[in-house]
Amino acid sequence: MQQGAPTPLRPAVRVDYEELCVFVARVFAGRGVPAGRARAAAEALCYGDLTGLRSHGLVNLTRLYLPLFDQARVDPRAEPQVIADRGAAVLLDARRALGLWAASEAMDMAVERAAGYGIGMISVRDATHLGCAGHHAARAVQRDMVGIVASNRDRQRIARPPGGRVAMLGANPLSIAVPAGGHHPFVLDMSTTAAPTGRIRAAARAGQRVPEGWLADDQGNPVTDPAASGDAHLLWLGGSGSSASKGFGLGLLVEVLAALVPGAGLGPAPEALAGDGGPSGRDDDIGVLVVAIAPSALRSGEDFRHDAQTLFGTLLACPPVGDGAPVRYPGWHEAERARAHRRDGVPLASPLYQELSDVASAMALPMPPPIAGT
Amino acid sequence: MQQGAPTPLRPAVRVDYEELCVFVARVFAGRGVPAGRARAAAEALCYGDLTGLRSHGLVNLTRLYLPLFDQARVDPRAEPQVIADRGAAVLLDARRALGLWAASEAMDMAVERAAGYGIGMISVRDATHLGCAGHHAARAVQRDMVGIVASNRDRQRIARPPGGRVAMLGANPLSIAVPAGGHHPFVLDMSTTAAPTGRIRAAARAGQRVPEGWLADDQGNPVTDPAASGDAHLLWLGGSGSSASKGFGLGLLVEVLAALVPGAGLGPAPEALAGDGGPSGRDDDIGVLVVAIAPSALRSGEDFRHDAQTLFGTLLACPPVGDGAPVRYPGWHEAERARAHRRDGVPLASPLYQELSDVASAMALPMPPPIAGT
Repeated sequence: MQQGAPTPLRPAVRVDYEELCVFVARVFAGRGVPAGRARAAAEALCYGDLTGLRSHGLVNLTRLYLPLFDQARVDPRAEPQVIADRGAAVLLDARRALGLWAASEAMDMAVERAAGYGIGMISVRDATHLGCAGHHAARAVQRDMVGIVASNRDRQRIARPPGGRVAMLGANPLSIAVPAGGHHPFVLDMSTTAAPTGRIRAAARAGQRVPEGWLADDQGNPVTDPAASGDAHLLWLGGSGSSASKGFGLGLLVEVLAALVPGAGLGPAPEALAGDGGPSGRDDDIGVLVVAIAPSALRSGEDFRHDAQTLFGTLLACPPVGDGAPVRYPGWHEAERARAHRRDGVPLASPLYQELSDVASAMALPMPPPIAGT
Repeated sequence: MQQGAPTPLRPAVRVDYEELCVFVARVFAGRGVPAGRARAAAEALCYGDLTGLRSHGLVNLTRLYLPLFDQARVDPRAEPQVIADRGAAVLLDARRALGLWAASEAMDMAVERAAGYGIGMISVRDATHLGCAGHHAARAVQRDMVGIVASNRDRQRIARPPGGRVAMLGANPLSIAVPAGGHHPFVLDMSTTAAPTGRIRAAARAGQRVPEGWLADDQGNPVTDPAASGDAHLLWLGGSGSSASKGFGLGLLVEVLAALVPGAGLGPAPEALAGDGGPSGRDDDIGVLVVAIAPSALRSGEDFRHDAQTLFGTLLACPPVGDGAPVRYPGWHEAERARAHRRDGVPLASPLYQELSDVASAMALPMPPPIAGT
């Protein structure tokens, strides 16, 4: 099994990372987002392509984010409002601010609280899509802290409770980022379903099949054609066996922490029962959990770094089975790819490059050129 | 798939729950545990049998807990010490106090902190076995809070990183308990491996096979004979496919939050590399994460209860597939069983009843009698 395998990518051009961020920031600024926020949002969106998590990267600009502006479902200038402040814990109403920016802002606030209290929790309601949760979680690592980000998808219901025939929950991502001493940070960024919807959409676009264990039909038979989504529903982590209740439980854990605690929109709500069991709803009023933990507020920061170095260094030194690939942990491959892409340019599939060029033309913005030879 | 199916139980007697708790408390008191602590520990241990999670219940009294006393690996009178106190977050050295009691004590402290700060985190080092994590998490529910408990198993290494041939982590349980309005609380209590070791030991004792996806040999072939554990290693949640990196990532998440943060013993440590890849180490210096979140410190408690009632009520109302069983969530079946067992007596397999009777004889304690007719 290869960990952290990137979404398959065929005919591609490479674009300078910094130029790409500048371009995306200009697109957001063109939709009314203040410059500093637009830059933070651009970094969050480009993180997907930078690290190889392409299903959550720029491919979503025209599919997800620009339509949110067009439909006034995101407010580019919204000022998130503190509803309650208990020092270590804050309830924030994001007021439909651009999630790509607001989630990073919330993490910075959590980090600040954790520095004093040892832990900081920002509980967010009325949020919008935040992109890769791991990007925001990883901001804590720069401050030698552990970052946690989880998010529900409000009323975008795509996964059913085990044994049920109505979809009630979203892919409900859960992420943690941890400093690893001198090694690449540990960054887990996972959907609690068997796969995130972005991966399934990407496979459908590419005309590819998905592995067994991701989708099933009403009778529980495996479905491998992602385009057959009308007849198929998404499975939980653990597939369809007895472990499915763990995946479902984790999805519910995220729904509780991200949405029930702050009072955001809930997937399991009466209107879900009125549906036909298929995917339903728009993902507005998203709930987000943002936590920072500061080990150095509780014990020596030097000891913590030493222990982290030991933990992750030992994992990297684990001898592989047979002639297999070296042992790695989540986040390691992504960091390697980010390093290579900062140096050599970020690969963009040709159709995606064309899409972005069309956006550039429509907004009269300069499109970053392909790096020569790609 | 049946959720929350109890460990199989054949020839059994039933014993009054309260009498059982009194008996177990006397056993612990006989080993030097102060009375109040002994009672709390007894409730934690009996919780397994009360709710049907028998692999984590009284079967462990003679296998796990009494040997800890015999080997002086638990200190019955230890006073846990506060190493650092940041208000919302506390670092606690449990000093080998009996984990069955200390974890509940830590949760009560977390609840108290959360009432003021919105969140309370007790980060524990040098702990001992806590039994069912869900029991301790559920104490928060009595105060209308969300409780989270996670624990590593220190140097008891039974699970390998994907692609590696040396075991480095334990089953690393993760638990959350959530008030559900008028419904049974949502209590998730899961190992991050495909199955907890207790379930595999129980199957081995009963001469039963385990499902595919729990164990594999070095070549990755499924192993279903739990007694073949010398040749088999435990798989992560998600099995051996691409989802295994999620299960591994969750195990690592628990290792970080429960052990790296407080500075407890780590599974991935240099001595692990010196082993032969088989299970190794003793589970001393366990790390525990205990968190309470108080939604009512952030928003109206009445609104929270209403939303929780909606969320869990909608799940319970989800129409089942075909003629299947009603949809339930983790903790629901356990609560039903606890209610029945409080009323009708707690079922104990005959060999277990005999074991406990032997303990009673050796300590000159009265053994609770079987309820007539069982």
